[in-house]
Amino acid sequence: MNYRLICKVIGVILGLECLIMLVSIAVSLLYREQYMAMAFLRSIAVCGACAAALLIAGRRGENSKMHVREGFLSVSMSWIAMSAFGALPYWFSGCFLSPVDALFESFSGFTTTGATLIANLEVLPKGLLFWRNLTQWAGGMGVLVMTLALLPKLGAGSIFLLRAESPGPIKTKLVPKISQSAKIMYSIYILLTASETVCLRIAGMPWYDSLLHAMSTVATGGFSSRTASLGAYNSTVVNMIVVVFMLLSSLNFAVLYFVVVKRTMKLWDNAEIKIYLRLLAASIVLITADLMVSEGFDAMESVGYAVFQVISVSSTTAFVTSDFGQWPEFSQMILLMLMAVGGCAASTAGGIKVQRVALLFRVMYRQLQSVIHPRVVRTICVDGRRVEEPVLANVSLYFFSYIVIILLMATASSLDGHTLGTSLSAAIACVSNTGTGIELAGPASTFNVFSAPTKLVLCFGMLAGRLEIMPMLLMFFPSVWRGK
Amino acid sequence: MNYRLICKVIGVILGLECLIMLVSIAVSLLYREQYMAMAFLRSIAVCGACAAALLIAGRRGENSKMHVREGFLSVSMSWIAMSAFGALPYWFSGCFLSPVDALFESFSGFTTTGATLIANLEVLPKGLLFWRNLTQWAGGMGVLVMTLALLPKLGAGSIFLLRAESPGPIKTKLVPKISQSAKIMYSIYILLTASETVCLRIAGMPWYDSLLHAMSTVATGGFSSRTASLGAYNSTVVNMIVVVFMLLSSLNFAVLYFVVVKRTMKLWDNAEIKIYLRLLAASIVLITADLMVSEGFDAMESVGYAVFQVISVSSTTAFVTSDFGQWPEFSQMILLMLMAVGGCAASTAGGIKVQRVALLFRVMYRQLQSVIHPRVVRTICVDGRRVEEPVLANVSLYFFSYIVIILLMATASSLDGHTLGTSLSAAIACVSNTGTGIELAGPASTFNVFSAPTKLVLCFGMLAGRLEIMPMLLMFFPSVWRGK
Repeated sequence: MNYRLICKVIGVILGLECLIMLVSIAVSLLYREQYMAMAFLRSIAVCGACAAALLIAGRRGENSKMHVREGFLSVSMSWIAMSAFGALPYWFSGCFLSPVDALFESFSGFTTTGATLIANLEVLPKGLLFWRNLTQWAGGMGVLVMTLALLPKLGAGSIFLLRAESPGPIKTKLVPKISQSAKIMYSIYILLTASETVCLRIAGMPWYDSLLHAMSTVATGGFSSRTASLGAYNSTVVNMIVVVFMLLSSLNFAVLYFVVVKRTMKLWDNAEIKIYLRLLAASIVLITADLMVSEGFDAMESVGYAVFQVISVSSTTAFVTSDFGQWPEFSQMILLMLMAVGGCAASTAGGIKVQRVALLFRVMYRQLQSVIHPRVVRTICVDGRRVEEPVLANVSLYFFSYIVIILLMATASSLDGHTLGTSLSAAIACVSNTGTGIELAGPASTFNVFSAPTKLVLCFGMLAGRLEIMPMLLMFFPSVWRGK
Repeated sequence: MNYRLICKVIGVILGLECLIMLVSIAVSLLYREQYMAMAFLRSIAVCGACAAALLIAGRRGENSKMHVREGFLSVSMSWIAMSAFGALPYWFSGCFLSPVDALFESFSGFTTTGATLIANLEVLPKGLLFWRNLTQWAGGMGVLVMTLALLPKLGAGSIFLLRAESPGPIKTKLVPKISQSAKIMYSIYILLTASETVCLRIAGMPWYDSLLHAMSTVATGGFSSRTASLGAYNSTVVNMIVVVFMLLSSLNFAVLYFVVVKRTMKLWDNAEIKIYLRLLAASIVLITADLMVSEGFDAMESVGYAVFQVISVSSTTAFVTSDFGQWPEFSQMILLMLMAVGGCAASTAGGIKVQRVALLFRVMYRQLQSVIHPRVVRTICVDGRRVEEPVLANVSLYFFSYIVIILLMATASSLDGHTLGTSLSAAIACVSNTGTGIELAGPASTFNVFSAPTKLVLCFGMLAGRLEIMPMLLMFFPSVWRGK
């Protein structure tokens, strides 16, 4: 095990974290929140000292090659370190009563989960709210992707970092050079954020709110600067803008690149996006009908709520315009399943990913076909390319692991004595990085209904969901740490 | 598609059903329930007429070979026909208010689910209660297994019938001849039933109750003749006898044969049984601790409740000695997961089966190992024999299909407006053939809380669980019906 290299990676990440804390200081000073600026300064001092120590310990670490093991461990350790140090501003601000709460809010931010413990957002310092949404933005595209974009010379084999951090069953590089790929991804990301900020400003939101919501939309995080989430603005135009950007952010960024920038393909050429949009449409129809029949809402109102909430939950953002915890059970059930499915591969959305679920259904169909026509051998192709059997086996296995993690989280949460609906939906909300479940874990409540140990367990679930399980599980193998 | 052969199989099954209805007539007459005997006679008239018609339509059907398609279709159609005609005695007895309710009770019986709609069992005619438990006994070992034992000359390729009906990922024959295997399995089954009847009688239960409980225990069905289930007898000895037989019935019958009859192996030589017993032990410890800490029960009482309920639920029998719907959420969560896992392959228990879940965890472990040591190729062996990769892929796929079916059932149930806990646990209870969930689907309630459409949907779920999904899904493919 190449510990020097791992130290170096974590050191670089913590260094970057100091930089984004500096941005938050600027925002604090802009709003004349000196005490908040002080909190950030203290955080930078601690974080920077650790970063320096790690960088010294890890010097010349890049001289040796990175293996898949080091890749996975670097990613999981970096994310844990980053989220842990990210809790410092919350803690130093004095707004949180316990360090566990500060940790939970930070993990929820970086993993773009958006589960919150704050019952009243309006009383928080603006600098801290900015930090809160900035962590989502940083976590959305992946912090190591950012590192690769900035420091292409981190060492040979850094493809493993990208592989461990980026979501989806089939990893593709946009262009042969990884650092170049990372730069393109970040460019799209920044472009989306900037566009949404401007759109929201034009729709009448103040600059500050526009930027904050743009950051958490594009990261599909879902932190808002208002307690009532987007419901506070009560503006159809704002909702429509956010819906469009939530949807875009839950599509495959590589496809967005080829469609928008290169213009070499159409959105419908991508099988996953086609399935995703159909899934959204079907869910919208079902929920609209349910709201009209069970709740007696009128058609326009129902469509509006359904479109917003379906896209908000599918993209694992979970902005809220109506308390869907009060909706009929059937609609809630659909929303929970959409959360678990999540968005497209290689987007900022969480969940199992549409591509995996679609592949599983195709394998299931193939299995049934093989009973009808036992002698025909069938291969499964996606976008014209054959998907190899080991990839399919891994997808099935991923599904199993995902359910196991959700059940583990739900079982641990159930020790708090909440109903199955609360425990299970909290687990799904955290592992899928959506952040809002139903019943006591629903939009009308905060995750403060859970005990401190449960909050820590859920932090693990959020990270496992964000990093697609494997890097988090590997940490528990002593042989990984011993390996040479 | 060889329709003649399918007609013949269904005809034989319905003929057998007439025979077991005759037994119920005898019981009715024994208890001087003339009206109940009449109800059975009318049922036999209807069922017998259909059986005759099918047998005429299917004459000489055995002359052509049975393919895997015909095997699967025969099994699913036979089960549907058998369960549908099995509803006739309920309906003709006048004890049920709607035909859907009679159907639900019948499907729940044959699939050994044990979910009931009857709020007060003591007022029902004894002949009908006997029929109710007899359906479980008939369904437990598999009706087609019975057919194969009785009519070995049903046609070449009848291995497909056995394959479609018997549970577990890896199908093994005990002895080269299928009909011989089937006879051995039924001998063990009858032996277990007779032993339990005698044991219960010695423990002080009347003969009638002893036989009824023995039939539903060995089938891991869980229908009782008392509203309070086994709680009504309030006898530790009875509980202990039932626990032993629930446990035995949820073990692999082939292993029981080699251990008890042939004495060529020990119980611990079987990997699945070893894992199953460890899983039970761990669950008992956790639930005992939870009951002591959260509910303040004393140690002996907690152990007693935990042992009984864990084995009752794991074997998917779901006899009840204490309303576990009132237990702490953590214990309920564990019980729900045990339901879904179920018992061993080739037992009468339902669920995903311990062997499948164990294999999935081993594949997951292998995947993690392959990151640590990328160059080592690992095969997975069970009881000294290598498990081929396609079998492993099928197990993963089965898990996915199982979850999909449960979610479909839960979503359909949620239209009734019950909480997630009720809908989801009802779905798990039906698909795993356990029959008792939590909240409104728990031991204190009946499935009458659900609407008629939901009951029908759950009937599908029970059959899908009993026949391990594939035969039920194939029915929805028009090409299966058209195929030549």
